[in-house]
Amino acid sequence: MRQAGRYMSEYRALRERYSMLELCQTPDLAAEITLQPVRRLPVDAAIIFSDLLLPLQPLGLPFDFIKGEGPQVERPIRSEADIDALARFEPRERLAPVLEAIRLVKAELSGLVPLIGFAGAPFTLASYAIEGGHSDHYTRTKALMYGSPKAWHRLCALFADVAVDYLTAQVEAGADAVQLFDSWVGALSPADYREFVLPHSRRIFEGLAATTSVPTLHFGTGTATLLPAIAEAGGDVVGADWRIPLDDAWRLIGDDRAIQGNLDPALLLAPTDRLMAGADDVLRRAGGRPGHIFNLGHGILPGTPVEQVEALANHVHEAQIARK
Amino acid sequence: MRQAGRYMSEYRALRERYSMLELCQTPDLAAEITLQPVRRLPVDAAIIFSDLLLPLQPLGLPFDFIKGEGPQVERPIRSEADIDALARFEPRERLAPVLEAIRLVKAELSGLVPLIGFAGAPFTLASYAIEGGHSDHYTRTKALMYGSPKAWHRLCALFADVAVDYLTAQVEAGADAVQLFDSWVGALSPADYREFVLPHSRRIFEGLAATTSVPTLHFGTGTATLLPAIAEAGGDVVGADWRIPLDDAWRLIGDDRAIQGNLDPALLLAPTDRLMAGADDVLRRAGGRPGHIFNLGHGILPGTPVEQVEALANHVHEAQIARK
Repeated sequence: MRQAGRYMSEYRALRERYSMLELCQTPDLAAEITLQPVRRLPVDAAIIFSDLLLPLQPLGLPFDFIKGEGPQVERPIRSEADIDALARFEPRERLAPVLEAIRLVKAELSGLVPLIGFAGAPFTLASYAIEGGHSDHYTRTKALMYGSPKAWHRLCALFADVAVDYLTAQVEAGADAVQLFDSWVGALSPADYREFVLPHSRRIFEGLAATTSVPTLHFGTGTATLLPAIAEAGGDVVGADWRIPLDDAWRLIGDDRAIQGNLDPALLLAPTDRLMAGADDVLRRAGGRPGHIFNLGHGILPGTPVEQVEALANHVHEAQIARK
Repeated sequence: MRQAGRYMSEYRALRERYSMLELCQTPDLAAEITLQPVRRLPVDAAIIFSDLLLPLQPLGLPFDFIKGEGPQVERPIRSEADIDALARFEPRERLAPVLEAIRLVKAELSGLVPLIGFAGAPFTLASYAIEGGHSDHYTRTKALMYGSPKAWHRLCALFADVAVDYLTAQVEAGADAVQLFDSWVGALSPADYREFVLPHSRRIFEGLAATTSVPTLHFGTGTATLLPAIAEAGGDVVGADWRIPLDDAWRLIGDDRAIQGNLDPALLLAPTDRLMAGADDVLRRAGGRPGHIFNLGHGILPGTPVEQVEALANHVHEAQIARK
């Protein structure tokens, strides 16, 4: 997940002067924001500051972030013709600022911690492209999926190609690992996931295996019943959220796979003893087995005290040291 | 779930002339809307037209429905003092219009189909009372739950008492079954559900067992990992949504319990053959075992063609007849 954000005063200071899109598209600024949490917090990795919607614009779907409403796509997909009008593009040209930000961060980090690149997964990108923004019920997305399955598969195959191109370019620019974000896929039944999403997400991980050799992460929320299928689609690491106990999730993902998760981010707003009890429960369920990346189940919530994030990172490190 | 709604022209016609609160609080209108789907669709039960927030006002939390934004509580709970200012009330007085609507519907139905009454469950009511409206992350709700657990439990115990009083009064007025809606409880981890919610929901079902003998239903969404605990809390029937296959859900709930569900309401926007294939999959997983109430996993989405709902109800009835 994004590490930087409104919970950090350094971030808010920049956000007051620049729009979200300006921050994402200006390499110096994106690099600076990427480094803010690394300077402030004892994290084990950095993740490039960006937004998973950036590929929509070069695909032919311009959008902006509207204050208080989130992202808004200017002309959301409403027909098969709208899908056929989209075109694969060269991320080295059209998303060059992100790649430049990766190069700047890598130079600045000089190996201190690895840098994670990322892209949006087909279902999640499709939901924004079709709904035009955030959605409660994904009504239009599912209506297109069920009603025009061939067009749906064309759209998702295009998103898959774009994800491979984009993540490959991020690795070339220096990303040490890449994460595929399917944040909203938990809206689907397991059968629909297998039919409408799995083939495209699998294509991404197979494509990446052909172009790169970095570790891959596969993220989603609300995925308790989808985890076996998500693991089948691919990813060296599979994410789980707090709705499923970590050990149960790991069983579903398979012992041969690493797991990332899964503290409820709302616990960062709890008293410290409850926060740490929650973290200890996650660590206990991981049981010291190799292949657990301690993380939140979703992004840091606005209003989170940065001191709590710092205390949590320190606590997890101390627990790791105590175990050794 | 609400059967009447914007997908029915009869409903939209009334909704143009009256506010949502007027519809809920005027017995003639609430009764008329309750009967609209019974007249139009071959459903096996009616559910009283109302809103689960109605008890908030007599508790001391006035609210209204804001066009395009949903419910808005005037002064959401912000402190323990706000919780202590709330007071249990007599639903036979303060929610008399709902009870009168139940009596009117019962007279009109004259035994044609049973009538279901309902109330909001503690977590879901607390989320509205604390957030002030719909919420994406339940940040304030969880912050209060974690940070002031005693106040949280006082609040939920009060909601539980209110639910028992209110549902008992609905049964006295003629409701043939009652449903507890914990629509948003899927935001919690299983451990948090057990600590913060289960005792209060259990208290409701135990309370109802002492005052009434009608069947009880226990509804939630996104509850795949919570189902065993939800069943433990109570309910003759436990609801499941489409995120978990019906047979898996039934195993978690237990064979001694009935199940309600679990078609994705978005399938009503799909071509008819896909809709019916989805319904057949639910029926196949139920396997003709007694104790399955065919239903959607959540409410009917706006924009749903009423003809599709009618075709679905007919299809399920025909499948039942074919099985016999």
